[in-house]
Amino acid sequence: MDTCYVGIDLGGTNIKGGVVDSAGKVVHFQSIETEGEHGRDHVLDRMGSLVGLVREGAGLPADRIAGVGIGSPGPLNTREGIIHEAPNLPGWENLYLGKEIQRRCGYATFIENDANSAALAEAVAGAGKGSNCMIMLTLGTGIGGGIVIGGRVWHGADDIAAELGHVSICYNGIECNCGSRGCVEAYASATGVVRRTREALAEGNASSLAALTDTLTCAAVFEAAATGDELAQRIVSDTIIYMAAAMGSLINIFNPEMIVLFGGMTNAGDQLFGPLREEVARRCFPIGAKRCQIVRSQLGGHAGVIGAAITAKQRLEEQAANA
Amino acid sequence: MDTCYVGIDLGGTNIKGGVVDSAGKVVHFQSIETEGEHGRDHVLDRMGSLVGLVREGAGLPADRIAGVGIGSPGPLNTREGIIHEAPNLPGWENLYLGKEIQRRCGYATFIENDANSAALAEAVAGAGKGSNCMIMLTLGTGIGGGIVIGGRVWHGADDIAAELGHVSICYNGIECNCGSRGCVEAYASATGVVRRTREALAEGNASSLAALTDTLTCAAVFEAAATGDELAQRIVSDTIIYMAAAMGSLINIFNPEMIVLFGGMTNAGDQLFGPLREEVARRCFPIGAKRCQIVRSQLGGHAGVIGAAITAKQRLEEQAANA
Repeated sequence: MDTCYVGIDLGGTNIKGGVVDSAGKVVHFQSIETEGEHGRDHVLDRMGSLVGLVREGAGLPADRIAGVGIGSPGPLNTREGIIHEAPNLPGWENLYLGKEIQRRCGYATFIENDANSAALAEAVAGAGKGSNCMIMLTLGTGIGGGIVIGGRVWHGADDIAAELGHVSICYNGIECNCGSRGCVEAYASATGVVRRTREALAEGNASSLAALTDTLTCAAVFEAAATGDELAQRIVSDTIIYMAAAMGSLINIFNPEMIVLFGGMTNAGDQLFGPLREEVARRCFPIGAKRCQIVRSQLGGHAGVIGAAITAKQRLEEQAANA
Repeated sequence: MDTCYVGIDLGGTNIKGGVVDSAGKVVHFQSIETEGEHGRDHVLDRMGSLVGLVREGAGLPADRIAGVGIGSPGPLNTREGIIHEAPNLPGWENLYLGKEIQRRCGYATFIENDANSAALAEAVAGAGKGSNCMIMLTLGTGIGGGIVIGGRVWHGADDIAAELGHVSICYNGIECNCGSRGCVEAYASATGVVRRTREALAEGNASSLAALTDTLTCAAVFEAAATGDELAQRIVSDTIIYMAAAMGSLINIFNPEMIVLFGGMTNAGDQLFGPLREEVARRCFPIGAKRCQIVRSQLGGHAGVIGAAITAKQRLEEQAANA
């Protein structure tokens, strides 16, 4: 029988868990609320219980699970299994998350950054399958990233590589929360799209979006653009230029086979991908543009769980190889 | 006795050659003129002869040389040993350079991009020794780059990775020769420095450089800045901002141990490195900035030859491992 792994995807609202086979296929999936307001130990207990819940849900005996992987937000230390801090989860500073969950569930437990987990899942079992170098951009309230080379996440010296939302597309651009200037996240994240739309509306531009000011979302801007709203169309086409500037640089740096886009904004489909591919081709060398496919995530909401499980599989294999 | 390798660094003006030991130390070095005006076969013959010349210069018998590496400008195919084109060397389109030199010198011959060669040399035997991820920027008439991960050059899918001069620092910036916009090369290369200085002089700015218009060089701009010329100081500090924007992005992408700067502009020493390190720290995450040393090339004019020789060593080792 095939060995399986449990992947846990820790978010501020939900904790997703899944049993994943060695090929990266989800055998059983379950999502529970994080309940972070009840404190750290409560959440850790829930994560530990979820491991057993999904194993039972998959109908597997305990010895069919080889290990557990956790995809977690925030800066962390993959080797030591430490979370340095977790946005939206106060009190999680410098927590030995790996050991805490291992103690609760009984399985060897490994941690990975959540964007890296999603990227690893797509590279091994999703859109990037077969590619040697795949880059993922997660387009959400912020922009995150993951770089997978030869089937392995590129972590950098301090596990903080692939902060792709903080590629600067404008040396004298707007200030970013990170302290730098012109980060692509500040322009092209959902937050950036809403901010730029609000600014344009405040300048008095006519738009069907004017009625929405308080409830404006990035999705609403893309929808308005699709139905012909000129302001929304300008915002969307600017967004595409900002993304393409960062992606063109990434192609000139890596000459990758693929860039996978992940997150709510990719629901726009061809409205986003069509003009984005054209704009990227104008912003990098032709050979690199021709080589690099720009595609949508295939695993969607399961990517974090699958990537966490693959993390466990790879770390266990490394331990065995080094033993 | 230690096995040695011959490295050949092909340039438009000179061909440099050297015998290099397995630790990357130059045993004998020689430079001859390229004489490209006499045609392709003439240059190939000179390259082939140079292999024997440096071997004899080192006083080594033929069997002490295990192989030959060539660092060459232009896009190329490292696996097939093909140069697709060589700037400054007309008629070198789609040339099997590896086979041509192997036929002439009798040794197994391998090719590598010249900036990648220099980066590999610094990573293995120079400033980047001991680093797992080292990035090199070559600051010359253009800006080139090399990325070395785990002691190996990152080539990308088509051997065109690490075009670091074509990282865009401005999505709506000036048009670059490559067709994109805002490439750091267009601003911060020696050519970019001279262009911006000429533009500022044409606007009527007072400067000691006004007398030099026709003979203006990047070095002269840095010298004038060092002696207090205000226009030159502004040009230099802008240059540092442009470089730092690209370098900050590279640190956020790779979280590398080191960025090595190579080329004539690094002669400016602390005038460049001091303010550049400060500006980079403002343009990336603090942990990444703290980790990444920004240093000058140690191997200078020998880097290309050493890196070409290390290329031969690594490819022979790979062949042996795969045999």
